[in-house]
Amino acid sequence: MNISTIPVINVLRSSTSQGWIEQALSNLEAILLDHSHCERKAAGVALNLMFRYPSNSDMVRKLTAIAQEELEHFEQVNQILEARGIPLASLSPAPYGAGLKAQIRPQEPQRFLDSLLVCGLIEARSHERLGLLADNLPDLELAKFYRSLMASEARHYGIYWVLAHTYVEAEVVAKRLDELAIVESELLANLHPQPRIHS
Amino acid sequence: MNISTIPVINVLRSSTSQGWIEQALSNLEAILLDHSHCERKAAGVALNLMFRYPSNSDMVRKLTAIAQEELEHFEQVNQILEARGIPLASLSPAPYGAGLKAQIRPQEPQRFLDSLLVCGLIEARSHERLGLLADNLPDLELAKFYRSLMASEARHYGIYWVLAHTYVEAEVVAKRLDELAIVESELLANLHPQPRIHS
Ligand SMILES: [Fe+2]
Ligand SMILES: [Fe+2]
Ligand SMILES: [Fe+2]
Ligand SMILES: [Fe+2]
Repeated sequence: MNISTIPVINVLRSSTSQGWIEQALSNLEAILLDHSHCERKAAGVALNLMFRYPSNSDMVRKLTAIAQEELEHFEQVNQILEARGIPLASLSPAPYGAGLKAQIRPQEPQRFLDSLLVCGLIEARSHERLGLLADNLPDLELAKFYRSLMASEARHYGIYWVLAHTYVEAEVVAKRLDELAIVESELLANLHPQPRIHS
Repeated sequence: MNISTIPVINVLRSSTSQGWIEQALSNLEAILLDHSHCERKAAGVALNLMFRYPSNSDMVRKLTAIAQEELEHFEQVNQILEARGIPLASLSPAPYGAGLKAQIRPQEPQRFLDSLLVCGLIEARSHERLGLLADNLPDLELAKFYRSLMASEARHYGIYWVLAHTYVEAEVVAKRLDELAIVESELLANLHPQPRIHS
């Protein structure tokens, strides 16, 4: 194992366990396939936010760039899947995504803030886990790919964080981010039996 | 008015009226804004199809490329809106989109075929109308922009058409495309009072 080169994003309340790394490395095909789904979902979430808040030019511009990058990642992962003969297939999701989504309060303006922060937390966790793959994969080419992606995911976290601060007071953001970060860590406290990026 | 340089896509059952061109040219700001919405919706529809049919590699790859291009168009139109000081805003849609969507039969495999053909018809009509804007806009820079987009929309029509033929017998496709093309034309038979790309 290499010495980790992951820049720390302070928002995460817990670090990923060695158990997840072992699960991921022993189930690489499932992880790659799930990663493909994650990228498509990340693009979908950015697009959905644009549909919900179409009048906000600055946000729309930033979300467009995120959606474009996620689609690029999606295509890149799909090329890796194809090269390895792993067919695209649906995959039952880990409880993580739905668990976080359930935290989004239904009323505005809370819904807006929670949506941005949940997106940010998922990006931050993806950043951490793709970094762990980069550090631990014996396949150096694949490791390099994950190293390139993890930088984008950190940037995406930053964009969601900045967007939240553009429209909501810093204190309100900090308090809610704290609450959501605790839930995020709890959702990952027990390793999900099925190997996933967010298992 | 220039002599039209629009390549004819034979699928459309009726040509756009002079009334629409006049409405569009006299309401250019609304048309530009609606065009922005159209591009975002086109990206959303391609992405939704990937969510619904995630196992179909060939289709996923093609839809990814379409979604990426539509997001690029979306960003380009938004830059034009910004340069002209037109703020992003939601806009009540013309009945066209919902009218076509209502034609999609809810059961598979009909739903699959109808979704592809409705997407194709919308692309074909966008191609025709963006071409009419290219031919009739007095602003030559904007006309050039529309000329560049109309080629992509024709290509998108072709991709949806090829996808339909990849998975469904040619006779079945032709019959259903015929039916849907008639509805598509009927939906545009009376000019919608609010100026839209598909009014
Ligand atoms: Fe990504
Ligand atoms: Fe991301
Ligand atoms: Fe487009
Ligand atoms: Fe298109």
